[in-house]
Amino acid sequence: MRVIPSFPGAFQSAMKLLTTSARKIEGVDKVGGIPTGGLVWASVLAYNLTRPLVYSRKEIKHHGREKMVEGVLTPGEKVLVIDDVVTSGKSILNATESLRAEGGVVENVLVLLDREEGGEERLRKQGLKLHSVAKISAIAKRLFDIQAINKSQYDNIVESTKRPSKSEKTAE
Amino acid sequence: MRVIPSFPGAFQSAMKLLTTSARKIEGVDKVGGIPTGGLVWASVLAYNLTRPLVYSRKEIKHHGREKMVEGVLTPGEKVLVIDDVVTSGKSILNATESLRAEGGVVENVLVLLDREEGGEERLRKQGLKLHSVAKISAIAKRLFDIQAINKSQYDNIVESTKRPSKSEKTAE
Repeated sequence: MRVIPSFPGAFQSAMKLLTTSARKIEGVDKVGGIPTGGLVWASVLAYNLTRPLVYSRKEIKHHGREKMVEGVLTPGEKVLVIDDVVTSGKSILNATESLRAEGGVVENVLVLLDREEGGEERLRKQGLKLHSVAKISAIAKRLFDIQAINKSQYDNIVESTKRPSKSEKTAE
Repeated sequence: MRVIPSFPGAFQSAMKLLTTSARKIEGVDKVGGIPTGGLVWASVLAYNLTRPLVYSRKEIKHHGREKMVEGVLTPGEKVLVIDDVVTSGKSILNATESLRAEGGVVENVLVLLDREEGGEERLRKQGLKLHSVAKISAIAKRLFDIQAINKSQYDNIVESTKRPSKSEKTAE
């Protein structure tokens, strides 16, 4: 997913799908980004939707004002959290925690790709509804149908969706 | 500068100025972003110009592939580095170093605001030409002319441009 913005055609197409999905979600005061990779998508989405952008900080600064969120966020505002991929959901939960700590109301998360490794369930437990442009199992099925991947590759992908991941490192 | 993306009208206006400035710079194969704040601007600029985006990593990961640049960069490609603000130029020089280490050719840097604290000179020594949408002294002059700031505030700003900053922390 991290290389898509290096291909303008693919970036434009994927952004269109993301924008279409975002428009279907009601009650979005602000778009919430997650550094680093997810911020690329959140930035362009906020720009395209003409909605304000806020983003969580990856690390807390240790000099002066310890802001966990960059940008202007007023308590009670509804933030739609955006990321490119959800695997375990860990980085999305961290960002949600930061946004909620600053008074943001976070109920919806939109990602381009759901790897189906337990993220949806983990997010639901924290009161978050996961929306995705695509699910890895559907992509694998399609690639197998058009013979772009073989049965063993297909089985590997399907197998990975049954194994909740412990970390999201590979997606960072 | 970090709050501009939280105001859609200002964000759109500033992006238009940035895009106009970027179009005047010749030989741009890729747009180079600098996390975290600068990446917001680089992402939308790359999208608007339909140019590929690459970005330097803020910290090097210590598991597996130690990539300093995210995205696809082929040696010899010319990268236009984007940031919101230049103060000392330190973070821009770090990003340039990462991009050059991966074979990128970096000759031009475009920022929204030049704080005029020695960044331009420091970048020039490393073979970088600094382009800016606005310079802090011109903004201060304009604000003073329309009486938005008083003489003492104006003098403070002008004074700051004569004092090369040692760090860029406040702009990070």
